[in-house]
Amino acid sequence: MQNDAFLRALRRQPTPYTPVWLMRQAGRYLPEYNATRARAGSFMALAQDPDLACEVTLQPLERFPLDAAILFSDILTVPDAMGLGLSFAEGEGPRFARTTADEAAIAALAPPDLARLRYVFDAVATIKRALAGRVPLIGFAGSPFTLACYMIEGRGSDDDFAVVRRMAAARPDLLQRLVDVNARAVADYLNGQIRAGADAVMVFDTWGGLLSSGAYRRFSLAPMRAVLDGLAPAPDGRRVPTIVFTKGGGVWLEEIAGCGADAVGLDWTIDIAAARRRVGDRVALQGNLDPLVLTTDPQTVAREAEAVVRAAGPAPGHVFNLGHGIVPRTPPENVAALVETVHRVSRETRAAAAPPPRA
Amino acid sequence: MQNDAFLRALRRQPTPYTPVWLMRQAGRYLPEYNATRARAGSFMALAQDPDLACEVTLQPLERFPLDAAILFSDILTVPDAMGLGLSFAEGEGPRFARTTADEAAIAALAPPDLARLRYVFDAVATIKRALAGRVPLIGFAGSPFTLACYMIEGRGSDDDFAVVRRMAAARPDLLQRLVDVNARAVADYLNGQIRAGADAVMVFDTWGGLLSSGAYRRFSLAPMRAVLDGLAPAPDGRRVPTIVFTKGGGVWLEEIAGCGADAVGLDWTIDIAAARRRVGDRVALQGNLDPLVLTTDPQTVAREAEAVVRAAGPAPGHVFNLGHGIVPRTPPENVAALVETVHRVSRETRAAAAPPPRA
Repeated sequence: MQNDAFLRALRRQPTPYTPVWLMRQAGRYLPEYNATRARAGSFMALAQDPDLACEVTLQPLERFPLDAAILFSDILTVPDAMGLGLSFAEGEGPRFARTTADEAAIAALAPPDLARLRYVFDAVATIKRALAGRVPLIGFAGSPFTLACYMIEGRGSDDDFAVVRRMAAARPDLLQRLVDVNARAVADYLNGQIRAGADAVMVFDTWGGLLSSGAYRRFSLAPMRAVLDGLAPAPDGRRVPTIVFTKGGGVWLEEIAGCGADAVGLDWTIDIAAARRRVGDRVALQGNLDPLVLTTDPQTVAREAEAVVRAAGPAPGHVFNLGHGIVPRTPPENVAALVETVHRVSRETRAAAAPPPRA
Repeated sequence: MQNDAFLRALRRQPTPYTPVWLMRQAGRYLPEYNATRARAGSFMALAQDPDLACEVTLQPLERFPLDAAILFSDILTVPDAMGLGLSFAEGEGPRFARTTADEAAIAALAPPDLARLRYVFDAVATIKRALAGRVPLIGFAGSPFTLACYMIEGRGSDDDFAVVRRMAAARPDLLQRLVDVNARAVADYLNGQIRAGADAVMVFDTWGGLLSSGAYRRFSLAPMRAVLDGLAPAPDGRRVPTIVFTKGGGVWLEEIAGCGADAVGLDWTIDIAAARRRVGDRVALQGNLDPLVLTTDPQTVAREAEAVVRAAGPAPGHVFNLGHGIVPRTPPENVAALVETVHRVSRETRAAAAPPPRA
């Protein structure tokens, strides 16, 4: 690997600067992405074509000196492979043709045939070849609970997934079975990505933060721990580093840090210095600039990014990222300012923290 | 006051049981509310008529042995009185006819003439007379930041108030002026409610939890502290106890507990036992059942409410509430089960914790 700063930071090993990548770094804020997306015809056609998925995965790396690539895909490929029929209407979020919300549907649920997800593994392998060791490739999956949210409600929610939270209280047995099946499916899925060449894997728990603490522990954190426990080493025998990210999970930070992941993703609401004090040196931390800052101007971006780098400090174990995905109206020049600032300021903080040279 | 358990709990004085009230306890889940609302013609007509506001304020107290009444009103009355033109379209949220989003509009902003909010003070006085000392009456206001969210965007948001968060980063001077004006307006407004007879006041910070920690401190918590600092004693010279509630504020709990309020409201995502450990005996805690639990069945409600009561423990300083407002499809019999459970179980936990009688 020519640039292994990201993997070293996940393992809390020293790096010359803070590595940076951005959630949804391949996406609609890039004109070249929109061109490829238009050529593909639909989001799913883009995600399911390994060559096109590779093309858009690499696009942000051509523009910015990012320290990792992330597979272009969607968290909902797994329930789609279970037969739920995923689509993305223009200008709207994901939709499932079928939901998994009642006793019969949940009883009938099983992890998918991995052959139905082969397009993802092929994309991983294609991207790995194209990267040729330039930077690491991150594989990913949705968390068992976050997948359950969409499987139960069939789409995004404007009431914080009220149906799901109601089920957590009234029919915990049903939700338990759903997340258990998902945990097996997600572990298999990530193992497939690891076999295909993913250098690190991340579990996106977008909606766990909506749960009460007891329900979070049971229906989101425990299944994520099961996923992590079920991961196999890479083909070369190395353990692949892992990241878990629960948006809105700041109140449970100590528990999340104990779930077995190498790194914990932080949304933008928590102070990363406070987070570091709370978790000690147990895990690396990934985050946590508000993605809306990237919609302002290069000077504001630089100022706010510098504040995050300084709050995280020069000790090993910080991967710079946003607190959630890039929003479509982000000007690409702001991303350039962000990456430049993170690299420059973090080199400076390391130099300032280094012991003086021997006389 | 015939039942002062709520006020005693806010002051962390012993009570024979845990007092309970529910955010939006007067609302659409009650058929009698919907009848009064239909009679009024519109939400604003209902809120602006002191007799009708009194009628709906008292409705839940006729059904359930709640330990406090809360003024029926809306958090957006203050910007409405500033001339922004508030309305509620059927089945939608609040709308302002005008926004306060640019330099000129924000520069021109001033606290409202309190005469335009006289209908609220009249409602407080009317309700106080009707309560006749049965239970305390809670007055309330939106937080300076939460009001700013609606004033800037003109309505609720489906992207976590992206325009506001962008302003916090790019034009902190504008947002600062907006929340400063709001803080003066909210203090004046709450003082008017206190003069009219409110026995306690609560500041609802529905959207502060969307901010980064630095922005939260500056644009939400500091202005709430200014509001609390600006409150005058009641006409009889007593200090009126105060509650602040930042939804999603669990990561900043220690700081919120230091803002000068007597009690801190908790949403449903934080474990109330963990919250108590974090704040010690500095403040009372109010919360924190997931309101979706109230849409299930009486047995589930009783089980989940009991868990919150037991987690809060028998020490003084817990006011039972939901973690957010009651949702419209809540069956009233579930509310009855909730109140009965909280009163019964909290009496039991106190009895179990009491020292044995002397021989």
